[in-house]
Amino acid sequence: MSRKPSIAVILAGCGNKDGAEIHEATLTLWAIHRHGADYQCYAPDKKQHHVLNHITGEEMAEERNVLIEAARIARGDIKSLAQFDAQAHDVLILPGGFGAAKNLCTYAFDGPECTVDESVAAAVQAMYLAKKPIGALCIAPVILARLLPNVMVTIGSDVQTAGHITRMGGRHQNTTHGEIAVDTANRVVTTPCYMLDARVDQIGEGAERLVLALLEMIEK
Amino acid sequence: MSRKPSIAVILAGCGNKDGAEIHEATLTLWAIHRHGADYQCYAPDKKQHHVLNHITGEEMAEERNVLIEAARIARGDIKSLAQFDAQAHDVLILPGGFGAAKNLCTYAFDGPECTVDESVAAAVQAMYLAKKPIGALCIAPVILARLLPNVMVTIGSDVQTAGHITRMGGRHQNTTHGEIAVDTANRVVTTPCYMLDARVDQIGEGAERLVLALLEMIEK
Repeated sequence: MSRKPSIAVILAGCGNKDGAEIHEATLTLWAIHRHGADYQCYAPDKKQHHVLNHITGEEMAEERNVLIEAARIARGDIKSLAQFDAQAHDVLILPGGFGAAKNLCTYAFDGPECTVDESVAAAVQAMYLAKKPIGALCIAPVILARLLPNVMVTIGSDVQTAGHITRMGGRHQNTTHGEIAVDTANRVVTTPCYMLDARVDQIGEGAERLVLALLEMIEK
Repeated sequence: MSRKPSIAVILAGCGNKDGAEIHEATLTLWAIHRHGADYQCYAPDKKQHHVLNHITGEEMAEERNVLIEAARIARGDIKSLAQFDAQAHDVLILPGGFGAAKNLCTYAFDGPECTVDESVAAAVQAMYLAKKPIGALCIAPVILARLLPNVMVTIGSDVQTAGHITRMGGRHQNTTHGEIAVDTANRVVTTPCYMLDARVDQIGEGAERLVLALLEMIEK
């Protein structure tokens, strides 16, 4: 293609306990730029499920908006997911963090019976129907398992979460640090990141392999 | 040395407009792990100067704590800067973001007449007196220029900020994307990052070169 590939990135807030995991999100953006592509960040314009003190883990008596907080990671350059246009992008990536399981879907509360935020579901379905590659990190692959038929993903090696993926009609592949699972038929790439007890450079390895595999899929 | 080098990282909150720049902070932690060192994050336990909506740039009617917000970048593993012990660390690094100029010192408001937060000044002075290397990214080098005599730093190529560094008794070296300025005598390494209009991978290059130069200085 003559223009740079355009990758849409859906952020779930800002912070691993109630929003997007910051290292996973940043290293996804880093890998996108490193390999010659551009990104556009999106987030749902709605209230976060809750706000957690990231030192104590306790809930704080305040409200925050997913889009406004996600803008911290995107340095202000972010759009509401309601504006998502699949035609404008070649690839979609969902970084992890508990926000993916609390704000983008209800997996943190409902497990395999979770529902997915309507704007997230619409973006994923539109990219899938257009046969455009989709990537997900950490816990975010549960969203793809909930939405796409018979998809093969990884969340690392956690037995319970892997079982939930099977119950949602997906298939799970065990992986370790920096590895990716590639579902060629569905054009889906996933990597475990902080679903394992990882170092930051291992998050970079996983994000970079995921971005490279997704960029290769565009050409085909 | 037999144990891994220990690098202390001072965060100024979470978000480039009112806290620590998230990409610079994350890529500093990434480079530290990538090159075999460990890190401990710190932040002052105090109220942020203000909270900005990172989309509109407007002030929000709420209060946040620098330490609690910085914990989002550190995934909860962070200490109050009041607990800083120079003997426990081999290197100190200050990532940038406007928070470095609003919460760690008053440069954003007072320019070259700025004052530095007492706990930040104590940490920098203790490392300097122990002849341990100190790094700073983006706008954070103004803190070193304010505290250390005749230090040579870079903030990129912004003429006004470079002039302020000279007025504070420092020396400024122009740099561009991914470059570092090394003051061997003072054991200080700096890099411009988002003081330039940079891509995320260029932030990674600068952070990685800075961390490598600091680790090399430990040995000497």
